Amino acid sequence: MSTKEQPKNEQKDKGITVKKEENMPEWYEQVLLKSELAEHAPIKGCMIIRPGGYAVWQAIQDYFNPVMAKYGVKNAYFPMFIPESFFEREATHAKGFKAEVAWIEPKGEDKQRYAIRPTSETIMYDTFSHWVRSWRDLPLRINQWCNICRWEVQDCKLFLRSREFLWQEGHCVYETEVECETEAKAMLIEYQKLCRDLLAIPVITGQKTEKEKFAGAKRTYTIETLMPDGKALQCGTSHNLGQGFAKAFKINYKGRDMAEQLPWQSSWGISTRLIGATVMMHSDNKGLVLPPKIAQQQVVVVPILFDDSKEKVLHAAEKIIHDLTKEGVRAFVDERTEYSPGWKFNEWELKGVPIRIEIGPRDLEKKTCVLVRRDTVKKEIVELSDLKKEVEKQLEAMQHDLFKKAEKHMYDNTSHATNWHEFTEAIKHKKWVKVYFHEDEKLELEIKEKTSGVTSRCIPLDSPIPKGKKCFYSGKDATVEVIFARNY
Amino acid sequence: MSTKEQPKNEQKDKGITVKKEENMPEWYEQVLLKSELAEHAPIKGCMIIRPGGYAVWQAIQDYFNPVMAKYGVKNAYFPMFIPESFFEREATHAKGFKAEVAWIEPKGEDKQRYAIRPTSETIMYDTFSHWVRSWRDLPLRINQWCNICRWEVQDCKLFLRSREFLWQEGHCVYETEVECETEAKAMLIEYQKLCRDLLAIPVITGQKTEKEKFAGAKRTYTIETLMPDGKALQCGTSHNLGQGFAKAFKINYKGRDMAEQLPWQSSWGISTRLIGATVMMHSDNKGLVLPPKIAQQQVVVVPILFDDSKEKVLHAAEKIIHDLTKEGVRAFVDERTEYSPGWKFNEWELKGVPIRIEIGPRDLEKKTCVLVRRDTVKKEIVELSDLKKEVEKQLEAMQHDLFKKAEKHMYDNTSHATNWHEFTEAIKHKKWVKVYFHEDEKLELEIKEKTSGVTSRCIPLDSPIPKGKKCFYSGKDATVEVIFARNY
Repeated sequence: MSTKEQPKNEQKDKGITVKKEENMPEWYEQVLLKSELAEHAPIKGCMIIRPGGYAVWQAIQDYFNPVMAKYGVKNAYFPMFIPESFFEREATHAKGFKAEVAWIEPKGEDKQRYAIRPTSETIMYDTFSHWVRSWRDLPLRINQWCNICRWEVQDCKLFLRSREFLWQEGHCVYETEVECETEAKAMLIEYQKLCRDLLAIPVITGQKTEKEKFAGAKRTYTIETLMPDGKALQCGTSHNLGQGFAKAFKINYKGRDMAEQLPWQSSWGISTRLIGATVMMHSDNKGLVLPPKIAQQQVVVVPILFDDSKEKVLHAAEKIIHDLTKEGVRAFVDERTEYSPGWKFNEWELKGVPIRIEIGPRDLEKKTCVLVRRDTVKKEIVELSDLKKEVEKQLEAMQHDLFKKAEKHMYDNTSHATNWHEFTEAIKHKKWVKVYFHEDEKLELEIKEKTSGVTSRCIPLDSPIPKGKKCFYSGKDATVEVIFARNY
Repeated sequence: MSTKEQPKNEQKDKGITVKKEENMPEWYEQVLLKSELAEHAPIKGCMIIRPGGYAVWQAIQDYFNPVMAKYGVKNAYFPMFIPESFFEREATHAKGFKAEVAWIEPKGEDKQRYAIRPTSETIMYDTFSHWVRSWRDLPLRINQWCNICRWEVQDCKLFLRSREFLWQEGHCVYETEVECETEAKAMLIEYQKLCRDLLAIPVITGQKTEKEKFAGAKRTYTIETLMPDGKALQCGTSHNLGQGFAKAFKINYKGRDMAEQLPWQSSWGISTRLIGATVMMHSDNKGLVLPPKIAQQQVVVVPILFDDSKEKVLHAAEKIIHDLTKEGVRAFVDERTEYSPGWKFNEWELKGVPIRIEIGPRDLEKKTCVLVRRDTVKKEIVELSDLKKEVEKQLEAMQHDLFKKAEKHMYDNTSHATNWHEFTEAIKHKKWVKVYFHEDEKLELEIKEKTSGVTSRCIPLDSPIPKGKKCFYSGKDATVEVIFARNY
């Protein structure tokens, strides 16, 4: 007996049966299920991260741990249970999260409810108040990799929105506002690099409007990308928390002047949502496409087997694997005899192996093989003696091309609007829209209501303060340049 | 305002104020708090793993991930929420865990309670029943690194017993009993190697008695070590689960004979408890002692600074760091001017840096420095030109010596008893006791009651079936040789 959610994971056909450009949500779900990266758990709103998906998360961890170490950030682990009274201490923060929380009711000696952490500011900062005594204890830079719960999610969108997900949350304490602001922005830039260099995802760096900023933050910085369907996806955030939490949690320290001081704080995070962003950005109607750097397997060799040449061909395939593995390429041979080469081609295209090498007796005679790149699906004949070099070249080229293609899509679909008509037209045509705007929470709410869901994504960091420009919506003097879009 | 648990973390004196041999629980707690590896959370029964402690956990992960990969085990992630109905399916398992579980009450669309995972057999095996269709899908080998909740814990013993801790749980499915049994034992041996090679902890490999085995298992294997106070500590377990869970969760597959078959399953785990075992085993009355392989910092250079030679000495210290770091040694210099060398010596002894190097102007003149190993605290004069080699030699020697010392303690304190008097005497003298025993749950319960807590730890894997021997307790024919001890 299984629960009613189970059928969500069932898909009759092996291949992808809907087109990305026609029904992206259904296509996205099929790609994840059929490439075996993730599936729906038999628990409302929850997902199971399968080995193929978890390998991407490990690649992100392996990339980002040394980056954090460079900044002096240390990993630690705090409890997932947060006493209800901790939430009450920072009022805005409490209000922002209260609806999303799962509670464990008190029993036995426990006198209050505990929340399953929706984020760890409160539990960490209570402890920081004991750790930070003097300016010599600063800066304090702590990170944790952990699971997070947002209980209000009923309907799981794999990797993008679920009751439980994995993330990294960095929490720092500084003596001065300048250090705090500088490092909050520096982490944002590190997130941008991670997206670009590892996941081949171009992002805009920006600041959230007052309406969209983190509950309890002074300023929220964000990286945002444009998905192929014209919706924006927030890929990571970094907050300058100001001194509000320090005040609420009594983090004081003896300053260089021997007086009691209030420190400045930042927090920043990325999550398993990045796996979803990567899959949605690059995959196609044949299935999963992954940037080579994060693909669990980078090369599959499919031998073309006939009875009289089987041994020779398998031997050649093994040699290819041996040579590639020695160079650090993650390669394997599909030796199964119960499936045809064509069946295998489809399987590994569906599962997103970046390069396929086909080799049969006729290739062997000519000392060549066929190389097929997953993103272009173009066949290329390669001399066996050049193969190692060619594989490395094509892996790099694919990583580069995926980024360039996504970047082009983002620029081609960034629209500018000076009035409501242009704005709604651009949204209709699956673009995100840059506008001059008179920042005001009420106006943002109005726009969201009128468009059934278009929200401000960010004020790009490189955009100048608009002087003498008028707000596209209200006609008032514009205060910022903002990107609006539908979003995930 | 802090909760009442907070004072637990407060220690007036900087150094350790109780002796290991006089009051081990208090000594252990002081070592962890003062070396800043962990502390009590302001939540009943929970701990905070500080960076020094988490670094040990990362070292364990970095060691064990490649070991698992060698066996074809893949990392994944399953939800921490487990529907109550899942627990009911395997009756023994449910009974074994029900008291330990924290529940999230249903609300909104949720129709049943969810447990915070106390272990993941049920949630994983429900999913395995969809993944496993044919013998071609076997063996299936999945691992997850995650947090675990045992809610009944009210009083946290740092790393050893807490409401929440971190662990690794491997879950495998096999066609045959032989494979299942072989790999369940193989993982136990890998755990033994991890303890020996990384943590310098000697362990006995054995099988749990029927009374002590895992709820729902056919057989439980365990690694056990003897702590300096004569108590045993379970360091890891590996279970041959038989076919009970497969039956309960309907994991069937089409066999090579085309008939429906029931597979065999294993599960195995180690946890952050290993950090506690390592600290308790090796540390001393000056503070933390860590095996060099897992120490976050392996070498500290303390320069002896005078005004007229300060620059020269600091320069020499920096050169030492540079040379050691190049060789992969984790080294740093303590340049602080506000503390005396003596104060620094105490600090780094307390915090368990394996090697201290002292260098002052007179040493520099003689082209030597002083090297002090943390475990022996013996001073050795070393030529600067030999330093690199000497550091590497001493790091290796220290890793080796810590293991040998612990191993000698274990053998010296393994007693044999043939009757009740010898048995209780040995326990009184802080030994663990090997006895011939007529295995029987009732007898084990009686022994536990009479001794206020002595339990069977394991049937050592290398012990033969006792023929013609009598049970030390009941006088009946002995069926096994068992180690008894008090335990953590």
